[in-house]
Amino acid sequence: MPSWVYIFDLIGTGVFALTGAIGARRYRMDPFGILVLAAVTAVGGGSIRDALMGATPVFWMLDINYLIVILITVLLSFPLLSRPAHLPKSTLLIADACGLALFTVIGTEKALVMGFSGMVAVIMGLVTGVGGGIIRDLLCRQVPLILRTEIYATASILGGICFSIGYISPLNDTLVLFIAMCGSLGLRLAAIRWQLSLPVFGLSSKR
Amino acid sequence: MPSWVYIFDLIGTGVFALTGAIGARRYRMDPFGILVLAAVTAVGGGSIRDALMGATPVFWMLDINYLIVILITVLLSFPLLSRPAHLPKSTLLIADACGLALFTVIGTEKALVMGFSGMVAVIMGLVTGVGGGIIRDLLCRQVPLILRTEIYATASILGGICFSIGYISPLNDTLVLFIAMCGSLGLRLAAIRWQLSLPVFGLSSKR
Amino acid sequence: MPSWVYIFDLIGTGVFALTGAIGARRYRMDPFGILVLAAVTAVGGGSIRDALMGATPVFWMLDINYLIVILITVLLSFPLLSRPAHLPKSTLLIADACGLALFTVIGTEKALVMGFSGMVAVIMGLVTGVGGGIIRDLLCRQVPLILRTEIYATASILGGICFSIGYISPLNDTLVLFIAMCGSLGLRLAAIRWQLSLPVFGLSSKR
Repeated sequence: MPSWVYIFDLIGTGVFALTGAIGARRYRMDPFGILVLAAVTAVGGGSIRDALMGATPVFWMLDINYLIVILITVLLSFPLLSRPAHLPKSTLLIADACGLALFTVIGTEKALVMGFSGMVAVIMGLVTGVGGGIIRDLLCRQVPLILRTEIYATASILGGICFSIGYISPLNDTLVLFIAMCGSLGLRLAAIRWQLSLPVFGLSSKR
Repeated sequence: MPSWVYIFDLIGTGVFALTGAIGARRYRMDPFGILVLAAVTAVGGGSIRDALMGATPVFWMLDINYLIVILITVLLSFPLLSRPAHLPKSTLLIADACGLALFTVIGTEKALVMGFSGMVAVIMGLVTGVGGGIIRDLLCRQVPLILRTEIYATASILGGICFSIGYISPLNDTLVLFIAMCGSLGLRLAAIRWQLSLPVFGLSSKR
Repeated sequence: MPSWVYIFDLIGTGVFALTGAIGARRYRMDPFGILVLAAVTAVGGGSIRDALMGATPVFWMLDINYLIVILITVLLSFPLLSRPAHLPKSTLLIADACGLALFTVIGTEKALVMGFSGMVAVIMGLVTGVGGGIIRDLLCRQVPLILRTEIYATASILGGICFSIGYISPLNDTLVLFIAMCGSLGLRLAAIRWQLSLPVFGLSSKR
């Protein structure tokens, strides 16, 4: 499994870096500003996870590949960013959903391997999955995706629970990884496509 | 004293979780979104404190009771959240004041027990007391309470200083805990009730 | 070199504390609120750096001088804050530029001394330089400086790269420190003065 986890982690890093770069478009930032926002989005969640678990120095300081993936992603995204007309409206949402699902299972797996309980592991998956996106949205002054009514935190928590249960099952770990990731991604994409939401609570008149 | 500190810590966790759930009302969030915001508010300050002090993994990863308290609080708050008319306007402010006072003395105590100086301990109390609320307000796009003119940081600093002085005094530790907490809470509630504030600095024309 | 690094670090702490206090002016905060915002701005970046590197407890918890510098800076800034007319518009920007340059080289140096690679050290310099300012701007609900088009992250990255290259060169370390800092500061001040920017990407119609 380790190699799959690692490859998924790098893919998720690239995907989240892309969402950071796209988020930067609203602000007409220069290349280095875009790089910073992409990097914060890509490694923010995992960095918070590692700092909370005491797994320091955090992951990307020990393995240069994460930074290289971010750098390449940002370089490749520049042509995309300068032709806004060619960027479908939902690109950011779908890319974010992929990153959310990937990082959720990665984060859950890392916490379980370090010996934390299933409940803590689900939360570490959630932190890894939503942390970077929350920082991106705060910096870009957007309403964080996690505060919107569509299923978001729920998709991450589902992925984490699936992986935690599968981890103690006799199933092959790689299979569990795929199932948990697909479950989380599928739920989030379905929520985006059909605007699904759980029952909501709150003031009906506001927003 | 340990048992009192622990019980107070759990009560403060529930109180801050409630303020997070109430803060979520403006956004018509689903149950899991509310749970995330409640949890971030409840354990955010203590997590920052522990990460800064190097006390990792942070407290709630080692003791499942904090998460259980948050879960129960959020479940119990759902009926309250769906009947907005029954929620007095000042509920959030008063609950936040209680959490502020409780977490301030808890944070100060933990830093003193770990051997830090009184000045650092007061700051750790402040971080514990205001950290979660600041994250909640940032996510909910409210002006953080700490930026308002009413006495807020001051109440936390007062509680931390009282506890730090009492800690090296011959007084009973539990008594010191109560006095510091009541001092902090009393000052903050008085500030809310009579809109007390210290002399303020700044541009008089703005806001 | 150590003594120079230390003196520069304390100067940077005071300068960033001043920008935090100035940022607080818009909110008519009381003295303790200003103190909190000044402290967060001054030690926020370095605290994130130390938490990421696992250098905990973070620097200011082990050396009381940082807190004393912040306290004195805030006390001295009160007369300035209460006479807004005497505060030139660009004061905040220039003070922030000085803090950015100072903290960038300090952060880069600390990471290199701890044995991290040049690429990680440049990022640690960036985190140290921009971290506190980002927190200040988020709390004050300003568009973070790093999201504006003028050269900002670029100035920090330039300083970090200069220092990292100079660090492995035969040049005197103090000289390298000055050169890297002046390069970073000069670029940022030039960008403020002549509104320089790198080519920007993004939607031309927004903002």
